[in-house]
Amino acid sequence: MRDYVEIGIGREARRTYDLDQVSLVPTRRTRSSKDVDTTWHIDAYTFDTPLVSHPTDALATPEFIIEMGKQGGLGVINAEGLWGRHRDLEGAIAQVTSNPQDLSNLQQLHAAELNEELLSERISQVRDSGVTVAVRVSPQRARELAPVVIKAGAEILFIQGTLISAEHVQQGGQPLNLKEFIGTLDIPVIAGGVADYTTALHLMRAGAAGVIVGSGVNTNAETVGIDVPMATTIADVAAARRDYLDETGGRYVHLLADGDIHTSADIAKAIACGADGVVLGPVLAQAAEAGGKGYYWPSTAGHPRFPRGIIEPVGSALAEVYTPASAAAARVELSLEVVLHGPSNDPLGQLNLVGGLKRAMAKCGYTDLKSFQKVGLAIR
Amino acid sequence: MRDYVEIGIGREARRTYDLDQVSLVPTRRTRSSKDVDTTWHIDAYTFDTPLVSHPTDALATPEFIIEMGKQGGLGVINAEGLWGRHRDLEGAIAQVTSNPQDLSNLQQLHAAELNEELLSERISQVRDSGVTVAVRVSPQRARELAPVVIKAGAEILFIQGTLISAEHVQQGGQPLNLKEFIGTLDIPVIAGGVADYTTALHLMRAGAAGVIVGSGVNTNAETVGIDVPMATTIADVAAARRDYLDETGGRYVHLLADGDIHTSADIAKAIACGADGVVLGPVLAQAAEAGGKGYYWPSTAGHPRFPRGIIEPVGSALAEVYTPASAAAARVELSLEVVLHGPSNDPLGQLNLVGGLKRAMAKCGYTDLKSFQKVGLAIR
Amino acid sequence: MRDYVEIGIGREARRTYDLDQVSLVPTRRTRSSKDVDTTWHIDAYTFDTPLVSHPTDALATPEFIIEMGKQGGLGVINAEGLWGRHRDLEGAIAQVTSNPQDLSNLQQLHAAELNEELLSERISQVRDSGVTVAVRVSPQRARELAPVVIKAGAEILFIQGTLISAEHVQQGGQPLNLKEFIGTLDIPVIAGGVADYTTALHLMRAGAAGVIVGSGVNTNAETVGIDVPMATTIADVAAARRDYLDETGGRYVHLLADGDIHTSADIAKAIACGADGVVLGPVLAQAAEAGGKGYYWPSTAGHPRFPRGIIEPVGSALAEVYTPASAAAARVELSLEVVLHGPSNDPLGQLNLVGGLKRAMAKCGYTDLKSFQKVGLAIR
Amino acid sequence: MRDYVEIGIGREARRTYDLDQVSLVPTRRTRSSKDVDTTWHIDAYTFDTPLVSHPTDALATPEFIIEMGKQGGLGVINAEGLWGRHRDLEGAIAQVTSNPQDLSNLQQLHAAELNEELLSERISQVRDSGVTVAVRVSPQRARELAPVVIKAGAEILFIQGTLISAEHVQQGGQPLNLKEFIGTLDIPVIAGGVADYTTALHLMRAGAAGVIVGSGVNTNAETVGIDVPMATTIADVAAARRDYLDETGGRYVHLLADGDIHTSADIAKAIACGADGVVLGPVLAQAAEAGGKGYYWPSTAGHPRFPRGIIEPVGSALAEVYTPASAAAARVELSLEVVLHGPSNDPLGQLNLVGGLKRAMAKCGYTDLKSFQKVGLAIR
Repeated sequence: MRDYVEIGIGREARRTYDLDQVSLVPTRRTRSSKDVDTTWHIDAYTFDTPLVSHPTDALATPEFIIEMGKQGGLGVINAEGLWGRHRDLEGAIAQVTSNPQDLSNLQQLHAAELNEELLSERISQVRDSGVTVAVRVSPQRARELAPVVIKAGAEILFIQGTLISAEHVQQGGQPLNLKEFIGTLDIPVIAGGVADYTTALHLMRAGAAGVIVGSGVNTNAETVGIDVPMATTIADVAAARRDYLDETGGRYVHLLADGDIHTSADIAKAIACGADGVVLGPVLAQAAEAGGKGYYWPSTAGHPRFPRGIIEPVGSALAEVYTPASAAAARVELSLEVVLHGPSNDPLGQLNLVGGLKRAMAKCGYTDLKSFQKVGLAIR
Repeated sequence: MRDYVEIGIGREARRTYDLDQVSLVPTRRTRSSKDVDTTWHIDAYTFDTPLVSHPTDALATPEFIIEMGKQGGLGVINAEGLWGRHRDLEGAIAQVTSNPQDLSNLQQLHAAELNEELLSERISQVRDSGVTVAVRVSPQRARELAPVVIKAGAEILFIQGTLISAEHVQQGGQPLNLKEFIGTLDIPVIAGGVADYTTALHLMRAGAAGVIVGSGVNTNAETVGIDVPMATTIADVAAARRDYLDETGGRYVHLLADGDIHTSADIAKAIACGADGVVLGPVLAQAAEAGGKGYYWPSTAGHPRFPRGIIEPVGSALAEVYTPASAAAARVELSLEVVLHGPSNDPLGQLNLVGGLKRAMAKCGYTDLKSFQKVGLAIR
Repeated sequence: MRDYVEIGIGREARRTYDLDQVSLVPTRRTRSSKDVDTTWHIDAYTFDTPLVSHPTDALATPEFIIEMGKQGGLGVINAEGLWGRHRDLEGAIAQVTSNPQDLSNLQQLHAAELNEELLSERISQVRDSGVTVAVRVSPQRARELAPVVIKAGAEILFIQGTLISAEHVQQGGQPLNLKEFIGTLDIPVIAGGVADYTTALHLMRAGAAGVIVGSGVNTNAETVGIDVPMATTIADVAAARRDYLDETGGRYVHLLADGDIHTSADIAKAIACGADGVVLGPVLAQAAEAGGKGYYWPSTAGHPRFPRGIIEPVGSALAEVYTPASAAAARVELSLEVVLHGPSNDPLGQLNLVGGLKRAMAKCGYTDLKSFQKVGLAIR
Repeated sequence: MRDYVEIGIGREARRTYDLDQVSLVPTRRTRSSKDVDTTWHIDAYTFDTPLVSHPTDALATPEFIIEMGKQGGLGVINAEGLWGRHRDLEGAIAQVTSNPQDLSNLQQLHAAELNEELLSERISQVRDSGVTVAVRVSPQRARELAPVVIKAGAEILFIQGTLISAEHVQQGGQPLNLKEFIGTLDIPVIAGGVADYTTALHLMRAGAAGVIVGSGVNTNAETVGIDVPMATTIADVAAARRDYLDETGGRYVHLLADGDIHTSADIAKAIACGADGVVLGPVLAQAAEAGGKGYYWPSTAGHPRFPRGIIEPVGSALAEVYTPASAAAARVELSLEVVLHGPSNDPLGQLNLVGGLKRAMAKCGYTDLKSFQKVGLAIR
C-alpha cells in the first residue's frame, strides 16, 4: 500500500510528500464563509480557532499570550526560555535581535539560570487575564518543572522536544517514562514532536491528549537529516489516531501540526491532511504583540551546543514579491487581531489567517473542521 | 484510470499537472501559419481569435474593450470594479499604482458605492462602438446587477467568482440558484471559475453557454490552498463537456481557461488540453490601451477583507532576461494590436500572441482550434 | 512500452526527459583519453570531431568557419543571414550588439535584400581555404538558393527550419517536396529540426543524409509551446534510424542534436542518447573568431515578425559562479582552438570540449562514438 | 527490481537518487546522544569518528592533518599536490586564492616538478606527531610514488582518481593492475572513486580495504556528464560489499562516501544509505587549520589541461541565509575542533559535525554506526 522505491540495490525508501506539494480540490457545493465553524474542542477546553502559537520567546510575551487567547487561539509559554531567566525580557530580546546573523547572544541568554519564581510570576500574570494557560516543558526537565508551572496556573502542559519518543532510552540515566508521568498529572498533556505512526501511537497509549507532528524547526533537515514530510506524516499520525480510537473504543487524541505552516493555505492543507489544530510560528511574528519585534526564531535556536533554527526577519517569505525590509517594517505594526482576523491588504495568505481558513473550507463546501479532513487532495 | 498516490497511510491524492509541465509534440505534416483559422464561435457570436480579457480594471478602459473587439477578441467589463464607482477612472487608477506594494488604495476604491448610472453610461459607450459587449458580475450581486448591465447593452454575461458552484449553500440566505437565474435571461452566460469535473458539469446543466476553468488569480494557492492544476483541470472539464454533449444529444458548452496563461505557448497548450478559448491577464497589460498603465492586478485584488492577487509591474515575467524596469518602460508604449498580432521584437512569446498560436498549430499540422485539441502532449 | 500518464480525464501525455536529467553511468574498465577516437564520417566526408556549429552569424564569420574546419569540426554558413545582405558584416553585427536587449536591429538587418553575388563571394572565400563547406538554407527558399550556394562551393546542404516536415502543406502554394528536391541534388542534405520519430523517418525516406533533432532555439517553449525534450527525442529518432536502416538494408542516416548542448558533458550525453554528432551554439561564441564578439543569438532571432531566441552575452551560463561581465570579458579573447581542444582553466565543461568528450568516453570505457551510444544512463 | 524508465523508444535509464532527496525516518525509541558511539575500525586502525578529509591542499597543511587525527578523524595528504612541489606552501596557496575566479595559478603551481625529498620530509613531520598517516596517490603515479610515501611514513594508502577501475586499459601503455599492485604492499589500500556496483566489486576483489564512492568533485557533471547519484550509488556499493562478504566468507570492505556531503545531516544520510565513513571537503575548510585560508577546491582543480572543481569561498553554502562575505570571515577563525565537536552557533549543520551525527543517530534510536545503516528512509 505504502509507496516504496528501491533507491539502490536492496535499499528502499518511502515516497513522501510536503504540504507545498498538496493542494485542495473543491468538488462540492460552495458555502458561505459565514457559515463555517472553526471551533476546536480539546479536553475541557474550547477555542474559536484551532490555532496554537509555537512556544518561542520570539512570540510569547505575556501580552501576546493573553491576546492570543482573546483572539480565539491558544498561546503557549516556553518554561525553559527567557521568561524565567531574565527579568528584563525586552532588554534580553533586544540583545538577540541586535545581531540576528549570530545565535551566540541567544545561546548565552539561555545559559542563564532558570528562576522558578520569576517564571511563576509571569505565568500567574497570564492566568489572571482569564485566558487558557498552556506551558511547554522539555522531556528532560518535565519532572522538575511541571509541578512549578502547574502550581503557577498552567492548564495544559506541552511536553515538546524537536522529536521525542514515549520512552527515551539512556544508559545509566533516569529518562522520562511518559506514561507514568502523565498518569501523575491532573491536566491534559500535549506531547511531541513526532515524525511517524509508531511513535505517535506510543504517545497516545502513554495518555497524551494531543500529539504534535513535526519538529517545529525549519533547519532540522540540515542538522540531523530528519526532514519531516508534513503531508505524509500528518496523514500517518491521523491513521494512528484512528487506530487508537478503535483500540480504545472512543478515545480521540488530537493532532497538532508544527512545521512548514506559513499561510492560511498551509493551515487549511494541514487540516485537510488530518490535523485537528496547527502550531504557528513566523507568521504570528508579524503581530506587534510578538516578542521578537521584527524577528522570529524557534525555541530550539537557543540550544547552547546544538542550536537549530535561524533568527529570521519577519516577512522574509515575501522577499520575492516585496523588498523584505519595507515589508517587515510594515508588518510589525499590525495587531495580532489583524493577523488572525483581518482586515487584510495581503494577498499571499499571511494576514486574516482565520478568514483564509474559513474561505478555503467554504469554497470546498465544508462547514466544520472534522469533516474538512476528508476534502479531496491533489499533488504535483 | 486516474493516477492516485497514497500520500500517507489511508490518505490519497490525485497526481495533477500544470500547463508549464506540458509541451506540444508535432507529429504531422507542418502547415503554413497563413492557412490556420483561429475563428471562435460561441452562441450567436463569432470572434477571429479565442482570446478574452480578464475582467479587471487593470485592463478594461472603454478604449481597451473597444480595441479588444476590433482586434478580434472579446474584452470583458467588470461591473463591480471601478467603472461604476469613480467618474475619474484615470485618477482612481493613478492612486492604485502610486504605491503598488500596498493593496489598501485599491481596496478603498472598491469600497465606494456602485453608481449604476455611471456604470451603464460607460457600458453604453462601448456598445455604441459596435463591438460585442461582455460584462462580468459576481454570483453575489448577479440578480441585482444583471438587469442593469443587460439594459445598458451587455450581450454576454460573465458570472464569475474565483471559484463558484452551481448551487451555493448559505444558512438563512438566498444564494443564487444559477439554473433558475440563467433561465430568466435572454443572453448567454459564461460562468466560473471551476476547478473540477463535477462542478463544471453542474454549471453546464444549469444552462451556462461557457464554463471558466481556473480562478484567474495567481495567489489563490497561498490564501486558500486551492491551486488549480490547469492542464489537468482543463482536461477534466473537457471530459465534462463531452459527457454533457452526449447527455444532451448535442449541446456544446465552451471551456475558457483563466489561469497561468502568460505567453502564446500557454495559449496553445491550454487549447491543446481542451480549452475552446483562453482568458488573458498580465500579458494584455503590455498594451498602451490597458487601464493599469504599467501594472496589472486581477479583479479580486480589491476585495475589502480578503484580497487575492498582487499588483505586479508589467513585464515582471521577463525579469530574468531583461531588467524589469526597462522592459516595462518599453512595453507600455505598445498597442494592443502589436501585442495580439505583432510585429514582434519579443522572443519569449509575449507579443504577437495570435501569430504564436497560429505558428504552434501550423508546426503541429493543425488548421482549426477544435482539431488542435487532439495534438500530442508530452510532460516532464 | 512508452510511458504515458493521464494528465486529466481521458487525456494522455507522454513522460519525456531532458539532457540535464540524464547522467552517464561508468560500469566498464576505464580507458585512456588518448586511445579515444572521435572521428565522424558522414557521406564522403570525415571529421576529427562530431561537432557542428549552429548556422548563425553570431558564430559564422569566414574566419570562424575556416578555423572550425581546421580544428576538426564542421562550420555551417547561414545563406539567409547577414553574409549576403551586408558587405560591412562587422558593422552590421556591431549594430546588433549595441543594444542586445532589443531584437529590432537584428530584425531590420535581416530585412535587407539578399545579394546572391555577395553571398557567393563569401562562400567561395571559405571554399578556397580547403575546409569542407556547409551552407544552411530554409525550406522556404531552398529551391531558389540551393543552386546558388552549391555553385559557390557548398559541399553539404543544411535544410533547416526550427521544426520542419518532409512534406509541408500549404493551400494554394507550392511548398517544398523534400524527397523530390533532394533527388535533384548532387550533394548530401542534412535536414531538420525534428521533434519526433515519425517526421524523422519521413525525412530519412526523403533521402536526407542526416537529420537534425531539436529546434536549435532555447525559447521555442515560450513562443509555440514545443519544448523538445532532447534526451527522449534523440532516442526516438535513433529508433527511426535503426528502423530505416533495417527497412533499407543498410542506409545509415546521421542524427545531429541541436538544442540544450552547452558543455562537454552535454555533448557526451547527446551521443549517449543516440546522436552521431552535435550542433553547438553559445559555447562556441566564446571564441575570438566568432562573429558575435561577446554575444550569441540563434539564426531565428532575426525573423521579422516572429523572432525566437534572445541575444545573450557569452558566458551567461556561468553567472551563478562567476560574474558574467568578467567571465564574458575573459572568454572572448580565447581562440576556437582553446574552446575545442584546450588547455582549459574552466572547470565547468565549457572549454576543451573535445577533451571533455574524450574523457567522458574513456571514463566509461569506450573508444569510439558508435559504441558509446550504448553507455549506461541514469536519470533523476 | 531496479527501477528503469524508457526515456525514448528502446532506450532505458535507471532512476537514481541524490542524498538531498533522502531523509531519515525516526521510528524507534530515542536515545541520548551521549550513548552514541561513532567509533570506526578499519584494518588495524581505530578512529573516534568515521570522518576523513578530502586529499586537497585547500585542507591539508601538516597542522591540519595532525589536528584532524587529534580530533578523532583521518586527514589525507595528497602526494601529488603542492606539498612536494613548493617549499613555501603558504606562499603558493596565497597565489591560488589571490584570484579565485581563475584556476590558472593553481594549474601552474601543479606543473612544478615533484620533489620527493620535500614531500617525504613533510609526511615525516606528520608521522612524528603520532597520528595515523594517510597519503593519496593517483593510479597513474601509484607505482612510482607509493614506495616513497610508505617509506616516509604512510600507514594507509589512498589510490584515488575522480573515477577509476580495477584494470585501466591503455593501448601500448602499462597501466596499473590494482590487484597485482595491492598484493605487493604491506599497508591497507583505499581505492576509488567508483560510481557503480561492478567497479566496486572489482576493487574489492583487487584487495582494497576500502572503496571510495563518488568523484569528490562537484563539477564532474558539467565536464564529463557523470554525475554520481550518491544515495543510489552508496546503496549499490553497499550491496557489492555484502556480496563480496558472502563470496569471501567474511572479508568486510569499507565504503567511504566522497561527494555532496556538506552538513552533519549529509554525513548521517550517507551512513544511512550504507557508507562506513565519509570524506569531507568544503565543510572542513571552515577550520583555521585548513590550508585554503577561506577557500576550498578539490585536488582535481589543478589539473593542467582538464581541471574539474572550482575555487569556492568558504561558507558559500550559507549564501541564501547570511551574506557569504561576513559568514566566510566569521568562519575561518574557527578551530577544527569547533567544526567537528562544537560548541556551535550554526543552525545549519555545518559546525559540530560529530554532534549532529550523534544527534541524528540518537533521535532515530541507534547507538552504533553499523546498525544505523538500517534506519528508515524517505524520499521526496
